[in-house]
Amino acid sequence: MPDDLQTEAETRHAAKMAKKKAARDRIMAGKTGEKGLVIVHTGAGKGKSSAGFGMILRCIAHEMPCAVVQFIKGAWETGERRILTERFPDLCQFHAMGEGFTWETQDRARDIAAAQAGWDKAKEVIRDPAIRMVLLDEVNIALRYGYLDAAEVLAFLSAEKPPLTHVVLTGRGAPETLIEAADLVTEMSLVKHPFRAGIKGQPGVEY
Amino acid sequence: MPDDLQTEAETRHAAKMAKKKAARDRIMAGKTGEKGLVIVHTGAGKGKSSAGFGMILRCIAHEMPCAVVQFIKGAWETGERRILTERFPDLCQFHAMGEGFTWETQDRARDIAAAQAGWDKAKEVIRDPAIRMVLLDEVNIALRYGYLDAAEVLAFLSAEKPPLTHVVLTGRGAPETLIEAADLVTEMSLVKHPFRAGIKGQPGVEY
Repeated sequence: MPDDLQTEAETRHAAKMAKKKAARDRIMAGKTGEKGLVIVHTGAGKGKSSAGFGMILRCIAHEMPCAVVQFIKGAWETGERRILTERFPDLCQFHAMGEGFTWETQDRARDIAAAQAGWDKAKEVIRDPAIRMVLLDEVNIALRYGYLDAAEVLAFLSAEKPPLTHVVLTGRGAPETLIEAADLVTEMSLVKHPFRAGIKGQPGVEY
Repeated sequence: MPDDLQTEAETRHAAKMAKKKAARDRIMAGKTGEKGLVIVHTGAGKGKSSAGFGMILRCIAHEMPCAVVQFIKGAWETGERRILTERFPDLCQFHAMGEGFTWETQDRARDIAAAQAGWDKAKEVIRDPAIRMVLLDEVNIALRYGYLDAAEVLAFLSAEKPPLTHVVLTGRGAPETLIEAADLVTEMSLVKHPFRAGIKGQPGVEY
């Protein structure tokens, strides 16, 4: 492109972006609320728990006390559990309450008891107003199998969650009533997965 | 339910789960490969970067050296940047190469130069076989705007990425050619977002 056309294109770009920025600034100026959010990560894709742990990392960075309650998971050691318990015990409580996937335990009564114990712990940490974010990892699985009562969970969040506390619920198959009640919902969809190509779960990626 | 029916239901559940476990174990036994993956997080939903940082946290937990190169982002301080640079400088390199969203800089030439500098840094860290995961945060935005050439990026990953290195590319609008070439692709879709309800970006959740 000749120099004068190049300059003209750049000027047009700058003008367009200035307009976009002005519009965006107007929108953002209207967003002044701070609120503890009910956040849901669902869908069949990867990244639901990872994104939850990414937010936990951010909370720790801001020195906001937080807590993780793991449903389903718990019977095996994960990187996230090790690093959070070893390096940040003062800022992040970690409660691994699961006993494995339902096809591992093969015992529905035990699965229900574990989910209920996880939920009791969840209520305890959510009630503590000093704790600013609570990650309920894989809780949607417990809701989907009916190990926990979705109506009870929603009633508790609505009645007892402190106004500034964020609660993050992960797992596929989140109930419709939870999606309705949540403030922020992301569906992670599987576009392509390497398990299909014979690649196993790997440290860093899956655990 | 009477006790004998309860017991029968439990036995049925156990048998069904035992069958499921056997099928799953057979599938998982076939998955023996270890491979450095090209991972893409795209879509308009939240959680693309958060999930990337969740994986970086896992790598650090496993003492796998890793690196973050941020495109676009970089002009402002984030929790993830602070905690990774302050607490884990030995395990995680952090390069914030962006200068803000394109409507902030309003200067296409400068955006292109910043993206190119980010890509040069990305190539350097990817080439280092000691580094086991590289997060290219928001690089898809740079690809989408044509600040970087997708064909060049793919050719580099195919020719020069060490076999065990994972590279994670985040950002909406990932090019089709990247999705084709990747091993693991998740689309994060927006089901519901609190910005629409006048809630601003909050620490822990967004940064």
